[in-house]
Amino acid sequence: MPVITLSTDFGAIDEYVGVMKGVILKIYPSVTVVDITHDLPAHDVRWAAYVLDSFYRFFPKDTVHIMVVDPGVGTDRRILTVEVDGHTFIAPDNGILTRVMAGGKVDRIFSVENPAYYLTPVSQTFHGRDIFAPVGAYISKGVDLSRIGPVIAPEEVFQLDLPQPRIGGGAGRQTLTGAVIMADRFGNLTTSIDEGALSEFMGDARPGDLTAEIKGCRIEGLSESYASAGSGKPLIVIGSRDYLEIAVNKGSAKHYFDIAEDETVTIAISERNDVL
Amino acid sequence: MPVITLSTDFGAIDEYVGVMKGVILKIYPSVTVVDITHDLPAHDVRWAAYVLDSFYRFFPKDTVHIMVVDPGVGTDRRILTVEVDGHTFIAPDNGILTRVMAGGKVDRIFSVENPAYYLTPVSQTFHGRDIFAPVGAYISKGVDLSRIGPVIAPEEVFQLDLPQPRIGGGAGRQTLTGAVIMADRFGNLTTSIDEGALSEFMGDARPGDLTAEIKGCRIEGLSESYASAGSGKPLIVIGSRDYLEIAVNKGSAKHYFDIAEDETVTIAISERNDVL
Amino acid sequence: MPVITLSTDFGAIDEYVGVMKGVILKIYPSVTVVDITHDLPAHDVRWAAYVLDSFYRFFPKDTVHIMVVDPGVGTDRRILTVEVDGHTFIAPDNGILTRVMAGGKVDRIFSVENPAYYLTPVSQTFHGRDIFAPVGAYISKGVDLSRIGPVIAPEEVFQLDLPQPRIGGGAGRQTLTGAVIMADRFGNLTTSIDEGALSEFMGDARPGDLTAEIKGCRIEGLSESYASAGSGKPLIVIGSRDYLEIAVNKGSAKHYFDIAEDETVTIAISERNDVL
Repeated sequence: MPVITLSTDFGAIDEYVGVMKGVILKIYPSVTVVDITHDLPAHDVRWAAYVLDSFYRFFPKDTVHIMVVDPGVGTDRRILTVEVDGHTFIAPDNGILTRVMAGGKVDRIFSVENPAYYLTPVSQTFHGRDIFAPVGAYISKGVDLSRIGPVIAPEEVFQLDLPQPRIGGGAGRQTLTGAVIMADRFGNLTTSIDEGALSEFMGDARPGDLTAEIKGCRIEGLSESYASAGSGKPLIVIGSRDYLEIAVNKGSAKHYFDIAEDETVTIAISERNDVL
Repeated sequence: MPVITLSTDFGAIDEYVGVMKGVILKIYPSVTVVDITHDLPAHDVRWAAYVLDSFYRFFPKDTVHIMVVDPGVGTDRRILTVEVDGHTFIAPDNGILTRVMAGGKVDRIFSVENPAYYLTPVSQTFHGRDIFAPVGAYISKGVDLSRIGPVIAPEEVFQLDLPQPRIGGGAGRQTLTGAVIMADRFGNLTTSIDEGALSEFMGDARPGDLTAEIKGCRIEGLSESYASAGSGKPLIVIGSRDYLEIAVNKGSAKHYFDIAEDETVTIAISERNDVL
Repeated sequence: MPVITLSTDFGAIDEYVGVMKGVILKIYPSVTVVDITHDLPAHDVRWAAYVLDSFYRFFPKDTVHIMVVDPGVGTDRRILTVEVDGHTFIAPDNGILTRVMAGGKVDRIFSVENPAYYLTPVSQTFHGRDIFAPVGAYISKGVDLSRIGPVIAPEEVFQLDLPQPRIGGGAGRQTLTGAVIMADRFGNLTTSIDEGALSEFMGDARPGDLTAEIKGCRIEGLSESYASAGSGKPLIVIGSRDYLEIAVNKGSAKHYFDIAEDETVTIAISERNDVL
């Protein structure tokens, strides 16, 4: 039972996603198509790059993941198909694959160029329907990536310059600085500080030794769950995306801190040495 | 062809629901996953309890219904799996099952505690992915509920104190009082007065004998459809959820009466005796 | 692998669409149900008529397309099932089928009247659940349309009076006038000028010869893609629905021109003769 996932910024009001599914089912009637989200912020490639990296591991190997956040549709931007850890991705060459390629084992990369696998005539306004969907269906059905187009070297792939967690501070006070990447439906704020970077930074420190600073507010200790602080109180926690999140128990950190989605904020993490 | 339904307050912008589907399909590739809604109001357990009771009967027996509205994720709240009328439910023990258990024949109840059926390591932030989804997949695949955890007695299950329709009034004027529970997408207001309570209250009265009072406005007669009143006029009708609804033909009762979702309003129903 | 598509104005917050899927899967467990959109504007039959015509061709033949935008539910409006180009449609007789019937080869039309294929008792508030879903499932399963109800002649079907592109102008300046029909998720404005009418109007003219006028603004030339104008600049393009669209590169034409969805605006297209 092969699976194709769809992630786009096409929204829910139009027939666009439905049309892609029609194209896929015409080519490969027995495939299971799974919607990840179609409410990615329009044209927001950075957000898309984080989201793509957050879900694909949970799918069976050989799943084909189509992601269309594509402000350059109709220009000469490339479309890529990439094999990472046994998963196949199809996405515009605009940086969406930055996180996936940084975190996984990249096996093969091809430029999507073979019109034999397109819906024809190809429009210049809807490559999701005319290229992404049919190419994804054919790959899921067993067409080898090498038939889709020429090989591309990893260094030829466009990469986003994403905010990396930075270690700073001086004697007695080490800091780790990141940025708010996105707010989820609950208003939880995912930061650019991933679990690995935090873990390395912490060393032998305990969760209770951490302090976060955001917009002048201090949050003491790293929580284990969203319910660890008092109701309506802010907290920090490693979220399900494996990044540090700023949250408010039964509330919205986005509203609490008045941080707009995509606005960049720096948080500091300092080690308390009062126990030594 | 087994079916798993998913109902959550996870919204549409994140990858959370997609991740749950990936986990399910990895365990049970041939299951059909059906989304009910993922736009349940965040943390609104009462609303979720009514919605759950409104859809499950329309699915085939042996369907597994997963419902995650779970503000207590990461605390010691239990997760339950309950068999009612041949359907299996998986939900936090926070009252979501109140209406289902009140209305159906409860066969068996178990506490979900066996980590053999979890995705590991289990996070404290996303039990939908790590517990609900895999446990649901294994149950749908045939794992008996008794292997999921220990038996729970019905009286141990947390029940919400839901507004019950009340009969009142005096000589010559009987009343039935309820509350607005929720507004649907069209602005139709579902009340806590169910068809059974209304039917018993009405006795021999005819639909035209009823009068509803809401926010000082009187509505004469029980309509058969949303189109029974003039365009833009309010009406009362037994809706598809089998509850009394307040609606406005081709309009929104929510806006007409300026009633916020979840705000409680009392309506009175009185019998007209002018024909006797 | 048969397919049923669902398009409604039921929105995402309620269980209504999920209930329809339960009804379908109970009757026909192996069918694939595909959501097109459930966020059609409430009660907006005209918009629905354009959307329905925009997606069905991309699905396999024998697909059953259910479309419920049905402000007249519970009145004596008919429900129709119509065979067009090997696809089967089920919709209220309120004009939704206007574009599909105008553009395709109408094979057979029947009035849905046979309660043997309904969910009983039939409510007067939710025909999507009680009539559209089960009738669609039975047709997809192989029940011949002739068993669903009596034959209807094409001229008996209610047709919307849709805005047609009009040719005008005088000596030296020909114009083609249309109306904005809808804005999509990106704010692209689909007009009533279809590719065929534009093509006929253009004759030997080149894309660069066209000028569009909308709300006092002139747009020079017909673009090939949304990225053909400068960032934030308006353009006209034949969109994926095969209609002329007004768009703004990386922006929203809806906001740029402050045109509300469904508001009617006339655009003119004139031929430049300066090169002759």
